[in-house]
Amino acid sequence: MSKRSQGVPLSFLMLDPSRGTGPLHRRLYERLREAILSGTLAPRSRLPSTRTLSRELGLSRGTVEEAFAQLDAEGLLERRVGSGSTVALPEHSRAPRSTRVRGGASSARGAGLSRRGRRMASDVLPPEARDVRPFTPCLPALELFPAKAWARAVARQARALVPERMLSGEPEGFRPLREAIAAHLGPARGVRCDWRQVLVFSSTQQALDLTARLLLDEGDGVWLEEPGYLGARVAFDAAGARLHPVPVDAQGLQVDTGRARAPRARLVYVTPSHQYPLGVTMSLPRRLALLEHARASGMWVLEDDYDSEFRYATRPVAAMQGMDAAGRVLYAGTFNKVMFPSLRLAFLVVPDSLVDAFASARASTEGHAPVLTQAAMADFMEAGHYVAHLRQMRQVYAERRDALLDAWRREGHPALRLGEAEAGMHVTAFLSGRRDAQPRMEERRLGARRLSPLYLGRAREQGWVLGFSGASPAGLRGAVRELSRLLE
Amino acid sequence: MSKRSQGVPLSFLMLDPSRGTGPLHRRLYERLREAILSGTLAPRSRLPSTRTLSRELGLSRGTVEEAFAQLDAEGLLERRVGSGSTVALPEHSRAPRSTRVRGGASSARGAGLSRRGRRMASDVLPPEARDVRPFTPCLPALELFPAKAWARAVARQARALVPERMLSGEPEGFRPLREAIAAHLGPARGVRCDWRQVLVFSSTQQALDLTARLLLDEGDGVWLEEPGYLGARVAFDAAGARLHPVPVDAQGLQVDTGRARAPRARLVYVTPSHQYPLGVTMSLPRRLALLEHARASGMWVLEDDYDSEFRYATRPVAAMQGMDAAGRVLYAGTFNKVMFPSLRLAFLVVPDSLVDAFASARASTEGHAPVLTQAAMADFMEAGHYVAHLRQMRQVYAERRDALLDAWRREGHPALRLGEAEAGMHVTAFLSGRRDAQPRMEERRLGARRLSPLYLGRAREQGWVLGFSGASPAGLRGAVRELSRLLE
Repeated sequence: MSKRSQGVPLSFLMLDPSRGTGPLHRRLYERLREAILSGTLAPRSRLPSTRTLSRELGLSRGTVEEAFAQLDAEGLLERRVGSGSTVALPEHSRAPRSTRVRGGASSARGAGLSRRGRRMASDVLPPEARDVRPFTPCLPALELFPAKAWARAVARQARALVPERMLSGEPEGFRPLREAIAAHLGPARGVRCDWRQVLVFSSTQQALDLTARLLLDEGDGVWLEEPGYLGARVAFDAAGARLHPVPVDAQGLQVDTGRARAPRARLVYVTPSHQYPLGVTMSLPRRLALLEHARASGMWVLEDDYDSEFRYATRPVAAMQGMDAAGRVLYAGTFNKVMFPSLRLAFLVVPDSLVDAFASARASTEGHAPVLTQAAMADFMEAGHYVAHLRQMRQVYAERRDALLDAWRREGHPALRLGEAEAGMHVTAFLSGRRDAQPRMEERRLGARRLSPLYLGRAREQGWVLGFSGASPAGLRGAVRELSRLLE
Repeated sequence: MSKRSQGVPLSFLMLDPSRGTGPLHRRLYERLREAILSGTLAPRSRLPSTRTLSRELGLSRGTVEEAFAQLDAEGLLERRVGSGSTVALPEHSRAPRSTRVRGGASSARGAGLSRRGRRMASDVLPPEARDVRPFTPCLPALELFPAKAWARAVARQARALVPERMLSGEPEGFRPLREAIAAHLGPARGVRCDWRQVLVFSSTQQALDLTARLLLDEGDGVWLEEPGYLGARVAFDAAGARLHPVPVDAQGLQVDTGRARAPRARLVYVTPSHQYPLGVTMSLPRRLALLEHARASGMWVLEDDYDSEFRYATRPVAAMQGMDAAGRVLYAGTFNKVMFPSLRLAFLVVPDSLVDAFASARASTEGHAPVLTQAAMADFMEAGHYVAHLRQMRQVYAERRDALLDAWRREGHPALRLGEAEAGMHVTAFLSGRRDAQPRMEERRLGARRLSPLYLGRAREQGWVLGFSGASPAGLRGAVRELSRLLE
């Protein structure tokens, strides 16, 4: 590359087609993102137009356009039609850090990190919600949480801190909590397990991260739902896995496509009860086909049952784990969505053959979650507060969903079509052919999340993930009205 | 290998000298340990004598002997002079797991784990203390913990669970706790940092694990103190690092030896304030030499300051971090030893250049520690309870150490020589040339930990690590008497 554009040296963007995996637009996007987040490309610096850049890098303009669109969607670029784009700071400003004096160019570029460290540092998850907006996905109705019953359980367990409880706990988790989880999952979710198979984690993310390390080596293939959950993509990417996006249709994951594209993949990540983000339920034939492929090929199935306790028209669909006779399914669930996000308790039910390996790995990578929060959660469950809270939230979220659907019928913008809303804490709104019309700053104010970054490959649909569980019916009605106005 | 011994097929023990790293005895030991812990070698099955095995495997008898000695020290083998050895279950019985019906031979051998997963699953840390024994190392005086003040802080923070506190916290940690840690570390430990450099973890183990992944790729060299802390060895081994044992003498880590043996190592793990297990303090010239080598070679220094608040004759020695002008030192500390082990709060102070990478990696591998325990800890510190507790424990542990030294002078066995006891929560007792006399089962009853497994290479010294912080003076006196009796 002989020319430099607008003063920013772009040679680091040159892609070597013989190295790396994944589509070119994705690799370009990742380099740019890393450069922006690390400060190599400073805030407010200007990038050349996609036309200029595609010429300089020898890439198709569509490739560059796709990369820029995603950076724009994530708020890392500010694009101006006809002229170049400007590096933005993400709205979730990293100001306290990024305004500090850095240790010079080498540290800004992440010198001293390992290769996998650079991958981990650049796989930036969108920040968790730090305030309550009407459409923030997966946000519980915090104002209705039985805070007093919880505080009593915590205080009771804090007072019960006898020396025996002060010693290190088991790496698998606090036994009364493991028992309470196993007892709940059988009737509630059709999960078949003994309490010894239940391992306690801090979050689904932590469970995914450890699973990826224990079951995958660098370069091992993983099927990911397309579109799908970013946390899973980040965990498997950090482990150096080769990511295979497998499309999701109205029946759920297209198992045949996955088998054709990556027959020897070592693991599949699925959300069969309520696909994130599309909201579909995986059909029985697809479940059976997936389990059969897993059995025959030795593939592990990671079933993430993140919000499936909430189903409004019918009974919750049983977990796939209960149908697995071959011991291939790992079942993940979390309390951070049903209770509250700062709690930090989640769990994984693993096949018996993996219990010892997970226990050793838990010990050598962390130890265990605090006994206090585990004991308080077990107390809260044993006293019946958990099931009562679930039951109340099922009703509250149904009302909120109804309020959203009702407002949508009256005031929803015709360019937006709503997806499945039978279950869970969110619904996806699809935008018909108007990508450039997406108003960025305002969607953030509403808490809506863009759909396009949830595609690993080229986004087939544009739109937003709209949470409905965290806001009042009135708040949701106002947010529908505002979103429609923004699209005028 | 043509013969099979005592019915146990041992072909899986054959070592390929062209693959793997580390001394042969260590690799043999690791294979045997994995086989025992996975059930491939069943409890009570007999192994051939070291003589037979060395012939069958084509290894020197010394190599086999060394591997068996370590397995014996860890309680995985029961050796009988002249005849073969028997596979034992560790005393920290894994009975509930190992007696379950397994999914067949393939699952017992860990089929389905990745290569790194098998490494993680076989790197079994000795279990944390689950009961209080007189010599259990690093155990706080649990009966003197200000449990009421702690329970009040917890209850207060549980009641303060407003919706804002229920949302996800920052991956770096809860800000008031980070500020309290930074404010404490300056005057108490000579650490120079801004609160933004403080990252909250669940345990030192978790901090070591993430550090290893962020800063090391597979095959990167790491200096480890020899003998040294097993948790560090396990974390760096799980990350696939190449481990270089560097001897410790009366001045601490032999920096010259490390530089000569592994000049391009990427990281060094050190306990300069109070070396684990030998108890020596790293001298100033050695500290300066280590920092200079780190600066010149770009090596990272991980300073684990695990128990250095406790120093009895003089003021605590300041941390090395405060002397580091080049931004190469990561400083680790933990509340799990000063407060109580099931608390699960530790911290890492990282150079400014690494803050963003750690924050991203924390988010993509876990999220954060529970806000409840972080807020309660911050509350406890701000109210002055933490410093008061530290002050009281410094006095209590000094008394306990004195009781141990006094009993030792009167009743200690002459074959045992005590090491440094100026600081910390343990002292090491060295045994002069009597390795076969070490009584295994009884040392466990006393809570003493063997010294030899803390060597990565051949153990140069035999003996025990004797904790003195967790037991009463009377309990320590009795334990000294009993240990001496065992050596008669």
